[in-house]
Amino acid sequence: MSTKYSVPRGFRDFPPEVALFRRRIMELIEEVFERYGFDPIETPVIEYWETLKGKYGEEVESKLLYRFQDPWSEEWLALRYDLTVPLARFVASHAPTLPFKRYHIGRVWRHERPQKGRYREFWQCDADIVGSPYPEADAEVVDLVCDVMKTLGYSGFKVRLNDRRLLKGVFEEELNLSRYGEGKILEVFRVIDKLEKIGREGVEGELLKAGLSRHEAEKIMEAVDVSGNPEKTLSELESRFRGNRNVEAAVGHLQELIAASSHREDITLDLSMVRGLDYYTGPIFEVYVEEPKIGALAGGGRYDDLIERYGGPSTPSTGVSIGLERIIDAGLELGLFNLKRKTCTQVFTVSMGEKYWSYARSVAREMRREGLRVQVDLMRRNYRKQLEYCEKKGIRAIAFVGEKEASTGTVTLYFREEKKRYEQTPLKDAIQILKREAQ
Amino acid sequence: MSTKYSVPRGFRDFPPEVALFRRRIMELIEEVFERYGFDPIETPVIEYWETLKGKYGEEVESKLLYRFQDPWSEEWLALRYDLTVPLARFVASHAPTLPFKRYHIGRVWRHERPQKGRYREFWQCDADIVGSPYPEADAEVVDLVCDVMKTLGYSGFKVRLNDRRLLKGVFEEELNLSRYGEGKILEVFRVIDKLEKIGREGVEGELLKAGLSRHEAEKIMEAVDVSGNPEKTLSELESRFRGNRNVEAAVGHLQELIAASSHREDITLDLSMVRGLDYYTGPIFEVYVEEPKIGALAGGGRYDDLIERYGGPSTPSTGVSIGLERIIDAGLELGLFNLKRKTCTQVFTVSMGEKYWSYARSVAREMRREGLRVQVDLMRRNYRKQLEYCEKKGIRAIAFVGEKEASTGTVTLYFREEKKRYEQTPLKDAIQILKREAQ
Repeated sequence: MSTKYSVPRGFRDFPPEVALFRRRIMELIEEVFERYGFDPIETPVIEYWETLKGKYGEEVESKLLYRFQDPWSEEWLALRYDLTVPLARFVASHAPTLPFKRYHIGRVWRHERPQKGRYREFWQCDADIVGSPYPEADAEVVDLVCDVMKTLGYSGFKVRLNDRRLLKGVFEEELNLSRYGEGKILEVFRVIDKLEKIGREGVEGELLKAGLSRHEAEKIMEAVDVSGNPEKTLSELESRFRGNRNVEAAVGHLQELIAASSHREDITLDLSMVRGLDYYTGPIFEVYVEEPKIGALAGGGRYDDLIERYGGPSTPSTGVSIGLERIIDAGLELGLFNLKRKTCTQVFTVSMGEKYWSYARSVAREMRREGLRVQVDLMRRNYRKQLEYCEKKGIRAIAFVGEKEASTGTVTLYFREEKKRYEQTPLKDAIQILKREAQ
Repeated sequence: MSTKYSVPRGFRDFPPEVALFRRRIMELIEEVFERYGFDPIETPVIEYWETLKGKYGEEVESKLLYRFQDPWSEEWLALRYDLTVPLARFVASHAPTLPFKRYHIGRVWRHERPQKGRYREFWQCDADIVGSPYPEADAEVVDLVCDVMKTLGYSGFKVRLNDRRLLKGVFEEELNLSRYGEGKILEVFRVIDKLEKIGREGVEGELLKAGLSRHEAEKIMEAVDVSGNPEKTLSELESRFRGNRNVEAAVGHLQELIAASSHREDITLDLSMVRGLDYYTGPIFEVYVEEPKIGALAGGGRYDDLIERYGGPSTPSTGVSIGLERIIDAGLELGLFNLKRKTCTQVFTVSMGEKYWSYARSVAREMRREGLRVQVDLMRRNYRKQLEYCEKKGIRAIAFVGEKEASTGTVTLYFREEKKRYEQTPLKDAIQILKREAQ
C-alpha cells in the first residue's frame, strides 16, 4: 500500500476493539469527574493563533504548535495544544457562574518526535476549577486525580507536589535572578523541567548557557534537591526562609492543601518538579507510578493570571490534565485492563438458507426493539460462513433460524464460549435469556 | 472583548447545558447504531491531502476543504471533510473482517459561508456497511436512520430514494452524454444537486453553461421530474427503459431494497435527489421533514468503487451520515427535546460556617463514594451565597451541614423545586433518598 494512503506520521487509527476499550476508559474518567461536580464543555479544535500565542513558552511556540494560515482569510490559525488555554479563552468570553467546574476530554496536537507512547494527536482529560483562590480547590483537584487512578485500578502511585513560588522565592530573594530580567525565572523553570530527560549535568550545563554563574547554577540545583515528606519538608522550608514572601505564601498554601486532601499519604513534596508550561503561578503536581517508567500520567496546577490575559477579570484557577495515552499504556503494562472485547454486538441471527432471510430479519428487528445489539447476515453466506464470521468478530451468542424455527416462531440459541444451547426457544424467552447472558 | 480572543468565524463553544444535551443526543444515536450491530472506530482529524484529493468533486476541493502545509515537513495536510473517505482509507489499510459495520461520530470541517444552522466545524454521525453488494445492506442503512429518527422523537419524516444508475442510464443511453467525456455525467449530477438552492431555471442555465444543448437540458429536467410511490414508479421506469442496462440494474436493486426494508411507508422515489458527492455509485437517499425546511437531516448511499481507489480489493459499501446540528436544530424547533438540564451535579453540601467545612467535605466524600455527583463549597462563601450558586446552576438537592448535623453524623436534605425537606437524616439514609430522587 502506498504510504500516502496511510495516516500522517504520529497519527493513529483506532479499530473497534481499541475504540471500544478507549471509550470505556474515558467513560470511567468522566464518571469520576462528574462525581466531583464537574460538567462538560466543548471548544473548537482550531483557535486563532493570537489566542495561543505567548501562553506556553517559546520552545512550544516555535517547535510544537501546529500553526497554519486559513486558506481563504489568510488569518493565522492553530490546532489546540492543550485544553487549558482554550478554557481560559472560553471563560473570558462566556463569563460563567463561578466557581466554574468544567471537564473536557478531547484531542490535542503537538509536533513531537513520534516514538513509543508519544503521538502528535493524543487525548487529554482535563478538569478545572475556575474562580477559587483557595487551597481546598487545589486539594479537590488532587483528590480527583487520585480517585481516577484508583477507579482505573492503579495502586502505589505518587503525587509529586511543588509550588512555583517556593523556587521563585529562592531565585528572587536569595539569588536575585530578577536582575536578569522578567523572563529569566520562567526560563530557569523550563530548564529544570528537563531534569528527567537530560539529567543533572545537562541541566547545569543549560543553566550556564542561559548566562547564570556557576555559583547560581549550584544554588539552583541545591534548591531543586529538596524533596520528601510534605509536612516535615514544608516546616523546614518555613524556618529556613522566614520572611521570604513567596516561600511563606507557598508553604501556607501547601499546608492547607495537604490538610484538606483525603489523599495525604500519596503526596510527596518535590522541588525538582516544576512543570514545563509558562502559565502556572502556584501549587503544581504530577502523578507517577514506580513502574513502568513512562513519565507523569497526569499533571496540573494553579494558574491565577491566565484568564485575565483574555480581558476577563482576575480569576484564580486550578486544574489537572490526565494523559489518556499514558494512563492506558501504563495500565496495559500493569495488566489492569481487559482488552478482550472485540465488538459490542451481542447476538447474530444465523439463517440456514435463503428461505429464512426474511424471518431472520424479523427476529433481528424484534430483538433490536428490545434493546439487544444484533447482526443479521448481509452477505448471503451459507450458515458455516456466518458462523466463521461470528467467531472472527468474537460475537458471543448465535440465534439459529431454520425450518423448525421459522414455522414455530422460535430461535435456537447457542453461546459459543460456553457451548450452551437452547433449542427452539420462543422469541420472547430467547430475548430474556440474551439480556441476561449476553451482556 | 477583543475579537481575536473569540473563536474563529463559523466555529462554536458549547457551555455545559448545551454540551450535556448534545452528548445525550449522540448517546441515543450511538445506542441505535449499536443495536444494529455497528462498532465504533476513530481516525485522525488530519489526513494527507493526497488521501482526500479527487474524491468529492472539484468545487469541494477548491472552495470547501481546509488544506494546509505541515509547518515542518511541508507535506500537504487537510482536515477531514466527511467520515466516509477516511473510512475507505481505513479499510484499505487495515483490511478488517467483512462485512465491516462501523459507526463514527465526530467533527468534520468545511469552509462554508457561516449562516443559521451552517458551521465550519460540525458533527456527523455515520454508520456504514463495508463489503456487502446486496440491497438488504442498503435497506438496513435506511431502516437504521428511520429508527434513529423515531428514537429522537421524529414522526412524519420522509426518505427520498434514488439510484445514480437511473439517471446515468438515461443520460448515457438516451442522450449519449458520454460523448462529452468521462466526467460530464458527474458534472451534471453536481448541477442537479443544486436544484433546491437555485431552482429549475438556475439548473437549466447551468446545464447550458456546461455545454449541453437546450434539447439535452430539457430531457434532463424531464428525467429529474420523476417522483412518487416507489413500487409504482419503479415498474413504470422498468417498462419505459426496457433493455437499458443501468436502469434495469437500478430498478432491480431498489425493488429488493424496498422489499427488505421495514420502513417502506416512509420511502418515496425522487429522481431529482442526486447527492452532491462524486463517490456514489448506486442507491442514494436523503431524510427530510416537512417542517422546518432546513434541508436533508441525513443522507447516504452506496459507493462501490471508493475503497479500491486506496489500493484495496473491490469492496462494495453503503452507508448513512446524519447531520448532528440539523437533527438538533430541527428537533428543537419541533419541541422534541428538553433543554432544561444545566448541570449533572445532583447535590450540593451547604455548610453553615467555617467550623463545618471539614464535615461538609467528608459528607461529599462519602456521597461520591456511593456514586452521587456532588459539589461542596470551594469559595468560603456564607450559606446564602452557596444557595444562590445552587439556584443559578440548577442543582436540585441541597445537603445542609451545621452544628446539629455535624454532631450527629446527619445532613438536612432539601429539594429546591419540590420544597421538600428531610431534617437531620443519617448520611446513609440521605444517600438512598438522593439516589432515588435526585437523578
